[in-house]
Amino acid sequence: MPDVAFEIDYSRSMFEQNVPGHNRWHPDIPIASEVSPGDEFRVECLDWTDGQVNNDDSANDIRDMVLERCHVLSGPIGIRGAEPGDLLVVDILDLGPIPQARGDLPGEGWGYTGIFSKVNGGGFLTDRFPEAYKTIWDLRGQQASSRHIPGVSYTGITHPGLFGTAPSAELLERWNERERALIARDPDRVPPLALPPEEQEALAGSLDPGSSWFNAVAREGARTIPPRENGGNHDIKNFSRGSRVLYPVHVPGAKLSGGDLHFSQGDGEITFCGAIEIGGFIDFGVDLIKGGMEKYGVTTDPVFMPGNVEPRYSEFVSFCGTSVDHDTNRQEYIDATLAYRNACLNAIEYLKKFGYTGEQAYMILGTAPIEGRVSAVVDIPNASCSLYLPTAIFDFDIRPTAEGPTHRDRGQVAVTS
Amino acid sequence: MPDVAFEIDYSRSMFEQNVPGHNRWHPDIPIASEVSPGDEFRVECLDWTDGQVNNDDSANDIRDMVLERCHVLSGPIGIRGAEPGDLLVVDILDLGPIPQARGDLPGEGWGYTGIFSKVNGGGFLTDRFPEAYKTIWDLRGQQASSRHIPGVSYTGITHPGLFGTAPSAELLERWNERERALIARDPDRVPPLALPPEEQEALAGSLDPGSSWFNAVAREGARTIPPRENGGNHDIKNFSRGSRVLYPVHVPGAKLSGGDLHFSQGDGEITFCGAIEIGGFIDFGVDLIKGGMEKYGVTTDPVFMPGNVEPRYSEFVSFCGTSVDHDTNRQEYIDATLAYRNACLNAIEYLKKFGYTGEQAYMILGTAPIEGRVSAVVDIPNASCSLYLPTAIFDFDIRPTAEGPTHRDRGQVAVTS
Amino acid sequence: MPDVAFEIDYSRSMFEQNVPGHNRWHPDIPIASEVSPGDEFRVECLDWTDGQVNNDDSANDIRDMVLERCHVLSGPIGIRGAEPGDLLVVDILDLGPIPQARGDLPGEGWGYTGIFSKVNGGGFLTDRFPEAYKTIWDLRGQQASSRHIPGVSYTGITHPGLFGTAPSAELLERWNERERALIARDPDRVPPLALPPEEQEALAGSLDPGSSWFNAVAREGARTIPPRENGGNHDIKNFSRGSRVLYPVHVPGAKLSGGDLHFSQGDGEITFCGAIEIGGFIDFGVDLIKGGMEKYGVTTDPVFMPGNVEPRYSEFVSFCGTSVDHDTNRQEYIDATLAYRNACLNAIEYLKKFGYTGEQAYMILGTAPIEGRVSAVVDIPNASCSLYLPTAIFDFDIRPTAEGPTHRDRGQVAVTS
Amino acid sequence: MPDVAFEIDYSRSMFEQNVPGHNRWHPDIPIASEVSPGDEFRVECLDWTDGQVNNDDSANDIRDMVLERCHVLSGPIGIRGAEPGDLLVVDILDLGPIPQARGDLPGEGWGYTGIFSKVNGGGFLTDRFPEAYKTIWDLRGQQASSRHIPGVSYTGITHPGLFGTAPSAELLERWNERERALIARDPDRVPPLALPPEEQEALAGSLDPGSSWFNAVAREGARTIPPRENGGNHDIKNFSRGSRVLYPVHVPGAKLSGGDLHFSQGDGEITFCGAIEIGGFIDFGVDLIKGGMEKYGVTTDPVFMPGNVEPRYSEFVSFCGTSVDHDTNRQEYIDATLAYRNACLNAIEYLKKFGYTGEQAYMILGTAPIEGRVSAVVDIPNASCSLYLPTAIFDFDIRPTAEGPTHRDRGQVAVTS
Repeated sequence: MPDVAFEIDYSRSMFEQNVPGHNRWHPDIPIASEVSPGDEFRVECLDWTDGQVNNDDSANDIRDMVLERCHVLSGPIGIRGAEPGDLLVVDILDLGPIPQARGDLPGEGWGYTGIFSKVNGGGFLTDRFPEAYKTIWDLRGQQASSRHIPGVSYTGITHPGLFGTAPSAELLERWNERERALIARDPDRVPPLALPPEEQEALAGSLDPGSSWFNAVAREGARTIPPRENGGNHDIKNFSRGSRVLYPVHVPGAKLSGGDLHFSQGDGEITFCGAIEIGGFIDFGVDLIKGGMEKYGVTTDPVFMPGNVEPRYSEFVSFCGTSVDHDTNRQEYIDATLAYRNACLNAIEYLKKFGYTGEQAYMILGTAPIEGRVSAVVDIPNASCSLYLPTAIFDFDIRPTAEGPTHRDRGQVAVTS
Repeated sequence: MPDVAFEIDYSRSMFEQNVPGHNRWHPDIPIASEVSPGDEFRVECLDWTDGQVNNDDSANDIRDMVLERCHVLSGPIGIRGAEPGDLLVVDILDLGPIPQARGDLPGEGWGYTGIFSKVNGGGFLTDRFPEAYKTIWDLRGQQASSRHIPGVSYTGITHPGLFGTAPSAELLERWNERERALIARDPDRVPPLALPPEEQEALAGSLDPGSSWFNAVAREGARTIPPRENGGNHDIKNFSRGSRVLYPVHVPGAKLSGGDLHFSQGDGEITFCGAIEIGGFIDFGVDLIKGGMEKYGVTTDPVFMPGNVEPRYSEFVSFCGTSVDHDTNRQEYIDATLAYRNACLNAIEYLKKFGYTGEQAYMILGTAPIEGRVSAVVDIPNASCSLYLPTAIFDFDIRPTAEGPTHRDRGQVAVTS
Repeated sequence: MPDVAFEIDYSRSMFEQNVPGHNRWHPDIPIASEVSPGDEFRVECLDWTDGQVNNDDSANDIRDMVLERCHVLSGPIGIRGAEPGDLLVVDILDLGPIPQARGDLPGEGWGYTGIFSKVNGGGFLTDRFPEAYKTIWDLRGQQASSRHIPGVSYTGITHPGLFGTAPSAELLERWNERERALIARDPDRVPPLALPPEEQEALAGSLDPGSSWFNAVAREGARTIPPRENGGNHDIKNFSRGSRVLYPVHVPGAKLSGGDLHFSQGDGEITFCGAIEIGGFIDFGVDLIKGGMEKYGVTTDPVFMPGNVEPRYSEFVSFCGTSVDHDTNRQEYIDATLAYRNACLNAIEYLKKFGYTGEQAYMILGTAPIEGRVSAVVDIPNASCSLYLPTAIFDFDIRPTAEGPTHRDRGQVAVTS
Repeated sequence: MPDVAFEIDYSRSMFEQNVPGHNRWHPDIPIASEVSPGDEFRVECLDWTDGQVNNDDSANDIRDMVLERCHVLSGPIGIRGAEPGDLLVVDILDLGPIPQARGDLPGEGWGYTGIFSKVNGGGFLTDRFPEAYKTIWDLRGQQASSRHIPGVSYTGITHPGLFGTAPSAELLERWNERERALIARDPDRVPPLALPPEEQEALAGSLDPGSSWFNAVAREGARTIPPRENGGNHDIKNFSRGSRVLYPVHVPGAKLSGGDLHFSQGDGEITFCGAIEIGGFIDFGVDLIKGGMEKYGVTTDPVFMPGNVEPRYSEFVSFCGTSVDHDTNRQEYIDATLAYRNACLNAIEYLKKFGYTGEQAYMILGTAPIEGRVSAVVDIPNASCSLYLPTAIFDFDIRPTAEGPTHRDRGQVAVTS
C-alpha cells in the first residue's frame, strides 16, 4: 500500500475531514498534499453524495438527495513540476471499496444505484421513469449481486467516475460562458439543461468558508456533473485497474482531484446515478510528459490506455437503435443519443418479457458491464447504436429461442414511500 | 458451400444479372428465390456501388459517384412460412470477398474506402474534409493493408453493412412520412438531411422497368442508406462470422435482402463509405421464431448475438469527446453524436503528430476495428464518448511517451484530379 | 481464392489423383508444383485416411482402418530459392472444409472422430477404452454438433493437423535410427511404441511404383504419425486462420506438404483420431527468412505465431492431474503425460455424472476447444497439468452446484458390430 | 476487508507468530481458527521460504536456502460442518502483496525468483542451469519489472501456489508409501526424486515442539513440495482473483491451509522457485457441497473454475517441442515433460539471440504469463507441447523478421559470490 496523499476519516462527512476535499472545480482551491513525478500514492474517497444514501429498502434518500453537495472530491493533489501544457500521466495501480469491515457507508460491503426523479436530477430515460428508485448491491470479492434484482451477478469493472485536473481561470470562464448560454436556451426546463455555479453547499478544500477566496470558489466554481477539458466526470467504465490516463495540465501543479468510485457500470451510466456507487480507495502512480499537449495534439480531452484485466465476457444478446422517436414517428438527423436511447428501451422491453420490472431492467443496464457502441453515424438520417448485454451475468438463459422467454415474478427495486 | 440462393455473374452490373437485385426497399419487389426454415444458402453480392470504383490512384470515381444507384442489394429471398410478427433468425455461417482469382472488382483481392465530397454524399466530418479521397486496400487472408496508408494492417471483422427484411406498405409509408418531414426542416441543406424516394437509377429486381409495379417501387421505394425497422444499413461491424441476427418480419415470406459487404470497419463507419468495401459472398442459415416480435418485445429494430471469432486486440490508445463545439465554445445538451465527433477529431490530431495526413487518419478510423463507445449520457450537459484505437494495427509504437511521437512522411491517400 | 498449387479431384482416392500426394516423409519425393516467396496459393486436401470413414452409425470402419495408408498428404510444394538453414514463413490465410455441396466425403458438411482400438492404433486412454468407436459431426458454418453426442456444439478452431517440410537424407536417417532404437526397447508392445518405415500402401507422389526411386521412399520413408524436426503431425489446434508458422528448411526448395485438416480439436487430441477430421482446403502465403535457423536459433522445431481470430470462450470448468497412478498408488517422477492423463480421466468421470458415457466424454475432450496446460513441472515428484473445459459448449449447466449434476440418458456414440 | 482468520505479524518468522502456521501436511495439526460455510475471511501469508531471501544482488541466499523449512503455510482453518466426502468450495475474492508500505519482506513492493542449484533443489532445466541465480522484481500496481531483466514488464496473474485441505491418516500413509517407493528407485539421485518426511525444521502450528503430537507430525508429515489429492502445491497460475476451487475434504473440518503467493508465474513454473514469490494476503469465501466428491466424481484432485479477470494478451511468439533428446538423438515415448522441456529450451535459444543470457531467458519463462500447452499426446512416439510467449511483455519487437533479431547487451541476473 502506497502512502496516503488524501486521507478520509470514514466516520465523518467530507465537510468535516481534517483536510476536506471540494465539490466545485476552481483553480484557487489549495492543494491538500503534494507528490512528485514517479511517486505512487493512495487517495481515499467517499461516495459521490457524501453518504446521503442508506443500505435500506426505501428510495426516499434518492428522492430527497441534496445534489448541490455533490460530487465530493478528494484532492487536489499537487504534482511537483507540472506546468500548463504538460500531460499528467496517471496510472491506476489499484482501487476498490473501503478496505474495512462491513459497515454503514457505501463501499463497506455494499453499494447503491439510484434512478433520480425527474424533478431532482433526472436521467437518460427520465420521461419513462420519472420517479425515484433505488437498488442496493452486495459486494463479494469482484462480484456484485442484489436483493432487489434477483438472477443477476457480475464482475465489476471498478473505476473512478470522476478524476481531473484543475481548470485555469480562463478555462473556467469558458465553461461558465458556454453553459450559461445553454441554460438560457430553455431556462425553466425540468430537469435543467445544465447546472450553473451554486453557492449553496459549496466546499472548497481548506479554504475558510466566509473568506473572500472561498466566496470566489462558491460563486464561480464549475459544478462537477459533466466531464470537460480537465477530465472530470467522464464515467468511462474502462478507467479501471491497470489503466493509464493522460490529463491535460491547465494550472501549475496540475491539481489532481476526484472520486465518485464505481464498483461496476455499464456504458452510458444511463440511470444518472447509474453505476454501483461506493466509497473506497484508489492507488495512483503519476508522471509528466513535458509539453505533452502540443507534442500529441491533446487539447480538449484526456487520452487513455485501458488496462488488460477487465473482466472477459464472450457471449452477448445485443440491441440496436436508430434516431427515430417511434412514439411520434419523428425522424431526427444522425442523433446517436436518440439511437442509444432506443437501444436501451429495446433492451428494457426484452428483459421485461422475462419478468423484470422496467426499473429493474433499467438498473441492470446502468450497472452491468454492458457495451454501448456508436455503430454508424453516417447513414443519413439515422445514427445506429448498439448495446451488448453479456448473457453470463444472468443465472437463467436470456437468449431468444423458439419457445419464447420464461416469465417469472422477479420482485422490484426499492421505491419511495 | 451451401446452394446459391442469389447468384451473381461478377462480369456484369447488378442491372444486367439474369435475376437482378434491387436498390430500393419496397414490399412489392418479387422474391428472387425461396428457402425454408432450417436451410443454409449462399448469397452473392456486388460492392454497394455496383462496381463504380476502380483500383487506381485517383479519387475521381468517388467524387463522381452516382449515389442514386446505391446500394445494390442481393435478394429478396423468400422464407417459407414467415409471417408478419415473426422473428427471422439469420445465422451468418461464413462470408468473405469474391472467391475468385484476383481481378478488377472490389472483393477480388482488394477493397476501397472513400471520403465523399460534401456536395455528393458527405460524411461524419465533412466540414473538415469536404473533398473526395480514396484509399485502396490489399486483402491477404484475414489482413488488409494499403499502399495509400503505410504502417497499418489489420485483421478484418468482415460483415455485411446491410441486410434486412422488406417493409410492409404501412411501414414504408411511415418511413416516407417522417423522412419527408425531416427534409422539410431544411430542404436546401448540403449534404441533405435525408434522401427521398428517387426514380432515377431505381432497380426493382425482376420487375420490368416501365411496368406499373416497377413505377410504384421507383416512386415510393425507400432509399437504402439508413437502417430502419427492417434492419437495413446498420453498419454494425459485429454482424460477423458466427453471428445470429433476429430480424422483424413485416411481410409474408420476410423477403430478406442485402449486401454492402465490408472487409473491415470501425465503429461509426465515419467516412460514410468508411469501411473497406467489397463484393463477395455470405452464407446464411435461417429459421423462424413464430410470433417472436411479441414474445420478445422486438418491434423497431433487430436483436443480435455476435459471434465468438472476432479478432482479439488487447491494447488500445483511447480518445474522449464531449458535446462541446470547441471552435465556437458552443455547448450542446447530451449530444453523443458531437461527443463521438470530438473523440474522432482528437484521434485524428493525435495520428497527425506521427506524420499521417488528416485524410489518412480519418480513413484509418473508418476502416480499422476501432471501438466507439457511448460512455456516459447523463452528466448534463455533456455526453461522454470514447474511441479505442488498437495499438497492434500499427507497425510502429503509437503509445504516448515522454520523448514524444516519431514524425515521419507517410504519403497520402488518392486525391481527385 | 488464390491459385491452386495442389489440386484434388474429390471423387478419387489420393492414389488416383492426376498428381498424387504422398504418405511418407522422404527428401526424394518430387515436387507437385512450385511457388515463389510472396505467393499465395491453395492446397486441397483429403481427410487423413483417404476416405476410409463413412457417415454412418457403425464404428467398423474405424476398427478396420488401414493405418499404413495414412496420412495422405498434399504436396510437396517447392518454394523457389529456399535453402537448408532458411526458415520458411507460412501464413495460414484461410482454410475450411471442402467448399462443395454436401456429400459423402468427410469435409462435405460433416466430419468424424474415432477412438481407435488398442490393437489397431490405440489412443491416449487406450487401456480404459480398448475398443473402436466413432462419432459423426455435422458442420454448420463455424459450428459442429453431433447426433452421437447430444447437448454440445462448438465453434471450431479449424487447423491443419499436419504440415511440414521434407527432411534431408541425414535427418531422415536420424529419425529412423532413434525410432528403431525405441521400438527395440519393447518390440512386441501393443500398441507399438513407434511405427517403422512400411512398404505396404506407400505413396510417393508422382514416383512410379516399381521404380527404384519409389522403392527407396517406401523402404526408408518416415511414417507421418509423429511431429519431428520438419514440423509434421503437430496437432497444435492453434495453427488456425491468421497464424504464421516458421518451418526449418532441410532440403533445397523446402518441399512443403501436409493435410490432416481438423474442423476442431482439443489440446492433446486425446482419442488419437481425436479431432473432427475433414478434407478441405487451405490457403497459404509463403516467404523466406534467409539463414533464419541460425538467426533465431531455430533448429529442432518450428516457431509460430497464432492468429487473433480463435473463438473466445471465457468460462471453464477445469480439472487437475498429477503424476500418480491412483489405481496402483504408484508415484512417477514429474511425468506431465501421466498428469494430463489424470486430468482427462477426472474430466471424464465428471461428465459421466451428467449421463454421458465414457466414450462420449472422451470424444468431447478430444474434439472440443479445451485447453490443456502444463501447470507445474518442478514440484517433485509431481507434475501438475490442468484441463479447461468451456462451459458454453453445453446446452445445459455443467458447473458444480450444491444440488449436484442433472443426470440424463444422453445416448451413445457409434460402436462396432 | 473481511475478518482475518489467520493473522501474520510481518516482523516475525512463521515460527514466532502468536499462532504459528505449519510446513508439513498432517491430519493432527490443530486448527488456527474456524469459519462457517458462507463466511468471507482473510488469510495472511509469508513468502514460502519464511523470509530467507533478500532484496539484493547476490544469489547466495538462494544457494544456501534451508529447504526443510519450506513452505510455511498459513492455517489450518477449520470449516464448520465439513466432513470427509464433501467438496469445499473456495472462492478467491481478492489477493495481493503485503498491503503495507514498502519494506524488507518479499511482497512489500518487491518479489523474487530463484534458480536453485542442482545440489539444493534443482529445477526443470537444472542440467543446463546447475548453479543458483536470483532476480528481484519491482511491483507497481498490477505490473512487475526487474533491474535484473531489462526490457520486460508484465501484468501478473496473481495466485496462491499452494492451498489445500488436510489429508486423512490413511491418505497420508498412501502418500508416504508411494513416495518412499519412488525414492527407493534411485536413492542417491541429485536432485532427489522426492522428499521424504523430515523432522528438521518441522513446524506444526500450535503443537508444542517436543510433545508427542508434534513428534508424530514431524516424523510422518508429508512435505509440501508436490500437489496431491488434497490440492497442495499445484502452482496453477489461473487460481487467481475470481476463481472458485473445489477441494476434496478428507478430514472433519476440512482444515484449509496454504500460502506460497505468486505475483506472477508462467505455466510450468519452470525454475522451481519460478514465480515472482511474495508474502501477502488472500480473501476467501467458503461453502460446502455436501457429498460432493461422490456427486461429481471428484476423488483425486480438485476441480476449479478460473475467474474472468486474468490479463488479456493477444499476440504470441510460440515454441514447440517433442519427446526427443536432441543432444543424444534418443527418442522417448509420448513424454510430455520432455516435449515441454524442448519447447522451453527452444524459447531460451530464441531469446538469447536478442541478447538475454540463458538465465534471464529461463527466468522470463518462469515468471511471465506464458501459456504451456499439451498439444498432442497420441502421435506416437512423440508428444507435442507448445509454449506461448506474449509479445506485449517486451518493450522491443521479438517477432521474427527477415532482418533478424536486434542483439543487445541486456545485463544479467544476480549470481552467487
